[in-house]
Amino acid sequence: MSKMTIQVLADHLGLSISTISKALKDSHEISAATKKKVLEAATALGYIPNPYASSLRKQKSKTIAVILPEISDSFFALAVGGIESIATQRGYHTLIYLTHESFLAEKDVLKHCAGGRVDGVLISVSKETIDTTHFDALKKGNIPFVFFDRDLEGYEAYKVLTDDYRSGLIATQHLIEQGCKNPVFISPSDSLSVCNRRYEGFKSALSNAQIPQRKINFNLVNCHDRKISITEQLKKILQKDSSVDGILASVEDIAIHSYLACKELNIIIPDQLQIIAFTTIKTADIFSPTLTTITQPAFETGKQAATILFDLIDKKQPKSNMTPVILPSILTQRASTKAVTKP
Amino acid sequence: MSKMTIQVLADHLGLSISTISKALKDSHEISAATKKKVLEAATALGYIPNPYASSLRKQKSKTIAVILPEISDSFFALAVGGIESIATQRGYHTLIYLTHESFLAEKDVLKHCAGGRVDGVLISVSKETIDTTHFDALKKGNIPFVFFDRDLEGYEAYKVLTDDYRSGLIATQHLIEQGCKNPVFISPSDSLSVCNRRYEGFKSALSNAQIPQRKINFNLVNCHDRKISITEQLKKILQKDSSVDGILASVEDIAIHSYLACKELNIIIPDQLQIIAFTTIKTADIFSPTLTTITQPAFETGKQAATILFDLIDKKQPKSNMTPVILPSILTQRASTKAVTKP
Repeated sequence: MSKMTIQVLADHLGLSISTISKALKDSHEISAATKKKVLEAATALGYIPNPYASSLRKQKSKTIAVILPEISDSFFALAVGGIESIATQRGYHTLIYLTHESFLAEKDVLKHCAGGRVDGVLISVSKETIDTTHFDALKKGNIPFVFFDRDLEGYEAYKVLTDDYRSGLIATQHLIEQGCKNPVFISPSDSLSVCNRRYEGFKSALSNAQIPQRKINFNLVNCHDRKISITEQLKKILQKDSSVDGILASVEDIAIHSYLACKELNIIIPDQLQIIAFTTIKTADIFSPTLTTITQPAFETGKQAATILFDLIDKKQPKSNMTPVILPSILTQRASTKAVTKP
Repeated sequence: MSKMTIQVLADHLGLSISTISKALKDSHEISAATKKKVLEAATALGYIPNPYASSLRKQKSKTIAVILPEISDSFFALAVGGIESIATQRGYHTLIYLTHESFLAEKDVLKHCAGGRVDGVLISVSKETIDTTHFDALKKGNIPFVFFDRDLEGYEAYKVLTDDYRSGLIATQHLIEQGCKNPVFISPSDSLSVCNRRYEGFKSALSNAQIPQRKINFNLVNCHDRKISITEQLKKILQKDSSVDGILASVEDIAIHSYLACKELNIIIPDQLQIIAFTTIKTADIFSPTLTTITQPAFETGKQAATILFDLIDKKQPKSNMTPVILPSILTQRASTKAVTKP
């Protein structure tokens, strides 16, 4: 029995398998002339699409992928909750992939997702990601994707973000209002858009208060290498310049390890050092002292990103129309920043 | 062109597609007689296995699934780290599925995994899981699986667990040694083997110290319904009986919300209430007061479970030979239990 496959048809016509497959499915991507040519050859050569493989390809996987840099930050755990609240309603499975802040891992995962394994992708990029070419595979495979929290600045895509510039500004203003003369910004990355926007807010607040900017104001801390102690890195920052009197921690881990560093160095919070942090951690109220926070709407971020993604999967135009959705954060003052002393 | 498919062959022989597929692959599950019958019919009828579908089935997915009840508990985040440390070495993708403690979700996810989407499964069961039939699909599909942390007691499978009975015993002994007369055990489940073993340890310690057991000693708290406040549930437990002077929190969330409940009720830890908890939380040292913990080797648990799983994927006999691997926990005393007063 001779076997007529799509590959034989492709070789015969000098076209790619993908083109033939799309032509036979009457895709709008293929010209009428090519469709006619393919159909005629398929009929002449007796090609019948393999129903098993075809159903495999046509069938929705009923699965979405969520690509995260990590899960130990409470923000991502909550955002996944918001995503799943929508996915479950739709009868979809949610697969979580972790990149551990590695660009290579992210590339690899996107390639994995592009193969039709999932119907859509929600992603918060790794701190190493500056290139966008790895998203082209998703675009080629017609796999819709939405960025949430961490995006690639300047790259046109659907996005659900937080008001990072404004939050960085008001957090720093708060430190200055509570008496900080030399606050520092501590970040796990100098490339992540989300951290950079917070830092821009920090710098604006300093500038507004006419506090001169110095090199010490910006500090990088490696938060994702198990072999490097985050606490030790923070101790070095605090020991380097004793005039530092405030920290804006751009992520949760930096806040936690700032507390641990202060404990080891016998630095009293907030008397000697005030701390405010971007975090959704539920233990802020039982820290010693309680932690002043900027809280992002993590659950809502996940929910809105998933809503846009399912609109795209359903081939509906999302309401946001590629204008980033920006959700507001909330500042909650606790004891790690000083009570305002009214004159 | 007539199409000879495995379905036609199956109908002709009155056998299932799965049997024919296995027979053609010379599987040990199929008798020699059946294999002969299938091979003869396939030759006579001109059946050639569809190479695309066959390669799809044969091809390793290079992916393992990790099925977790939740990710907001630090134990699971760390365990995933341990799993990935092995999977990455092997060039495998790790997919994370969350069941949110739902048996139905777990069943659904296992079905999803059984379809050849993954080469192996690591699972910590949901608190609702008491049935084991949903694991049969994995067994049938020859997908190896290993339980870690939360297993199904009495169900024969590869397992990597912690010494829960012993840990429950020494944690309770610690509370009693520090002066507790009426400690309570607070748990998110009365069916989870891991919690039950801890509770058995708790009961043994009470019995050893000749402390009578009362109904109040065991308390259930719903930890996974977003609509029910965990803090409120704990406040009710503490308000119901003011003689309660110690808590053994069987999971992290109960420890956190016990602190929050005490704060709202103005109960002073450890003077009025001592707390010890099963948790790997990195903030135990900055809680007010610092939290006495029983720490499980979370990373190592994930690592060992993944090592066994890859042995199974490679068709090697794992060293543990279906005897559960039991890893020890560590008690670290901090300020939430009283300093021992030597006479």
